[in-house]
Amino acid sequence: MELKLYVDRMSQPARALIIFCKLNGIDFEEITVDFIKRQTQSPEFEEINPMKQVPAIVHGELKLFESHAILRYFACAFPGVPDHWYPADLSRRAKIDSVLDWHHLNLRRGATTYVQSTVLGPALGRLNPQAAAEAEKILVASLSSIETIWLKENGKYLLGNSQPSIADLSLVCEIMQLEVLNEKDIKRFLGPYKKVLQWIEDMRNATNPHFDEAHKVLLEVKAKYQGVTESTIRAMLPPKL
Amino acid sequence: MELKLYVDRMSQPARALIIFCKLNGIDFEEITVDFIKRQTQSPEFEEINPMKQVPAIVHGELKLFESHAILRYFACAFPGVPDHWYPADLSRRAKIDSVLDWHHLNLRRGATTYVQSTVLGPALGRLNPQAAAEAEKILVASLSSIETIWLKENGKYLLGNSQPSIADLSLVCEIMQLEVLNEKDIKRFLGPYKKVLQWIEDMRNATNPHFDEAHKVLLEVKAKYQGVTESTIRAMLPPKL
Repeated sequence: MELKLYVDRMSQPARALIIFCKLNGIDFEEITVDFIKRQTQSPEFEEINPMKQVPAIVHGELKLFESHAILRYFACAFPGVPDHWYPADLSRRAKIDSVLDWHHLNLRRGATTYVQSTVLGPALGRLNPQAAAEAEKILVASLSSIETIWLKENGKYLLGNSQPSIADLSLVCEIMQLEVLNEKDIKRFLGPYKKVLQWIEDMRNATNPHFDEAHKVLLEVKAKYQGVTESTIRAMLPPKL
Repeated sequence: MELKLYVDRMSQPARALIIFCKLNGIDFEEITVDFIKRQTQSPEFEEINPMKQVPAIVHGELKLFESHAILRYFACAFPGVPDHWYPADLSRRAKIDSVLDWHHLNLRRGATTYVQSTVLGPALGRLNPQAAAEAEKILVASLSSIETIWLKENGKYLLGNSQPSIADLSLVCEIMQLEVLNEKDIKRFLGPYKKVLQWIEDMRNATNPHFDEAHKVLLEVKAKYQGVTESTIRAMLPPKL
């Protein structure tokens, strides 16, 4: 049964889906729906996702959107996906669900609103310093919760797990979008959180080469919207980011 | 194995959990953690939920928070819960997950922020007409999406289902919190959405007497906070408004 991914690689949940599929040998056709060009607003795409957002998928009869719902579906519907991504054990699964549910009104709300009301603001018509200031508070509180609560226990990954789950993947892709900010802001946000920085590097290692490949777009975005060349940005980035 | 529910009935996801348990014969001990009295901030409760929010549960070794994660866990872990609440079929389950995931940054963000920055504002120290105005836009867009997308198909419940799911329960409890507003505002928000109004009534009938019993608290809240709020808000606004 053919799987179609409707994505824009500028979208962090879209990148999470791509990484997950490539890592787990799930074949798919990638269909780009450019949200800055407002392709998500077309009547054709509305047939795929009435909420007019990427990512969305079509798999046989199933049309689905919301990246966490899609990740859960992938982990259960495709044979051969290792159990650690979304364990069959109900207690372990429930803990992963709690991270995923927490994510929406915390890390996602903070990080996405911050990026969309600053660097991507002009392109999206959403430049808004006040929204950015409010988002910054939520982002900082969320990073602090990841450092002190979700990464509190032993084990490399969220919840003290020894292997990554779909929650690790969703959250790390969310944080990675901060790469489009300038060097000073990246340091300001992530610098205080040593465990978070180590976890990003561990997730990168656990999912490469797909992680770096999916995130290449961020360098292009940064170059395009900050008016500097890719090589300059490469030189600016700390080795672990 | 004993189940403990840490709740405040003023919290709409807490009410959803109580209704679900009563409806499905799941025995539990109800432990009230009053968030207006800041009992959620105590070191004892932090041991239960490090995010310091209700609802949370303890079931044997498992400590869990985030109401959607808890509802999924209840539906899977307790024998005898009818399949329609969270179907084993992966496609049907995925669609319900997509409604639950959509909920956070849409209906929940709109409704909860609106109520907490108006009626409950004085009690929570969050009275904020500007936040209320922004929340109103999100709330209205969310109600419109429920009317035209989630309730689009035939069938009484969300996604065109003939029986309710945990998504119906979570969303209807969210909307029910609007009952603490004054009659004019309730009409302004819900009046235009005839399918939503019918669906609320259908959910009430499907889950009574537990629905009415759990929502009784709203009448008390309304009586306690409403008169106070309107005059407080008016005092905060510039004279010409």
